[in-house]
Amino acid sequence: MRVFGIDCGTGITGFGVVESSDGAREPALMALAVGAIRLAKARPLAERLEQVFRELTTHIELWQPEVVAIEEVFYSVNAKSALKLGQVRGVALLAAARLGIPVAEYAPLKIKSSVVGYGLAQKEQVQFMVARLLGMSELPQPADAADALAIAICHIHTAQTLALQEVK
Amino acid sequence: MRVFGIDCGTGITGFGVVESSDGAREPALMALAVGAIRLAKARPLAERLEQVFRELTTHIELWQPEVVAIEEVFYSVNAKSALKLGQVRGVALLAAARLGIPVAEYAPLKIKSSVVGYGLAQKEQVQFMVARLLGMSELPQPADAADALAIAICHIHTAQTLALQEVK
Repeated sequence: MRVFGIDCGTGITGFGVVESSDGAREPALMALAVGAIRLAKARPLAERLEQVFRELTTHIELWQPEVVAIEEVFYSVNAKSALKLGQVRGVALLAAARLGIPVAEYAPLKIKSSVVGYGLAQKEQVQFMVARLLGMSELPQPADAADALAIAICHIHTAQTLALQEVK
Repeated sequence: MRVFGIDCGTGITGFGVVESSDGAREPALMALAVGAIRLAKARPLAERLEQVFRELTTHIELWQPEVVAIEEVFYSVNAKSALKLGQVRGVALLAAARLGIPVAEYAPLKIKSSVVGYGLAQKEQVQFMVARLLGMSELPQPADAADALAIAICHIHTAQTLALQEVK
């Protein structure tokens, strides 16, 4: 299974592609790509959104994932930040929809507990565990890209759990 | 000048095309198109955003406006609503950017005072004045479409004021 994770942000949007290969008792996970889209604050909003849409479309098309995984929204932010984040999230979801790829959404607590083992983990713990689970020799950078990998891992873990439940 | 106004909403997104023709002492305004995109709540979010993007792109391409005018955000809504609205607003801005058309943003108070004469006007007053300014025999429906026409009128009024100031 190949999953394209996206961590939306108004400044930086991270993305990461994770593939799971069956075979051993526990499926191995591998990072195929990791990156971040950095937006120049000086550019008009519509152009920044166009950049996110264009770059995400390019990467999703290149990697042909079976699913795009994205974080569910975090309502503790204020309305102004939520609106700005929503604009980026809207074009990210659109990029997946335009390519006909289904989208899965996961709550932040679920993502952290899936990767680190508990929901209130710090950013550094997420980076460390993502690197470990993917067999990376260095921590994925920036943190937004590590978060995107974590979201993709969360989807794979969730799909595996569902598959095991079906077997039982 | 031809302006494409958009009133974004999570349920209904209204749009309207207004053209001003110089000639008389006061330029005449005319509505070329008015409509609304209604989203089915049952469909997945990404598909709904794709529908808004696709339909707006179709209409903007058809009418070839010089500018797309859109409401600035209303921060009194809560974070959850702001995020949902932001997602729709993001794909609306993207539709304009993908077609290379500049975007102008106006605050709700400015739009109402430009059309009705004061900023705290009711929805019905906006509908009434929009119909009157555009010489329409019936009130534009739904209210979201009337708001989109109001946003377009606000842009034309603002551009005219700027032009008068330059002449002085």
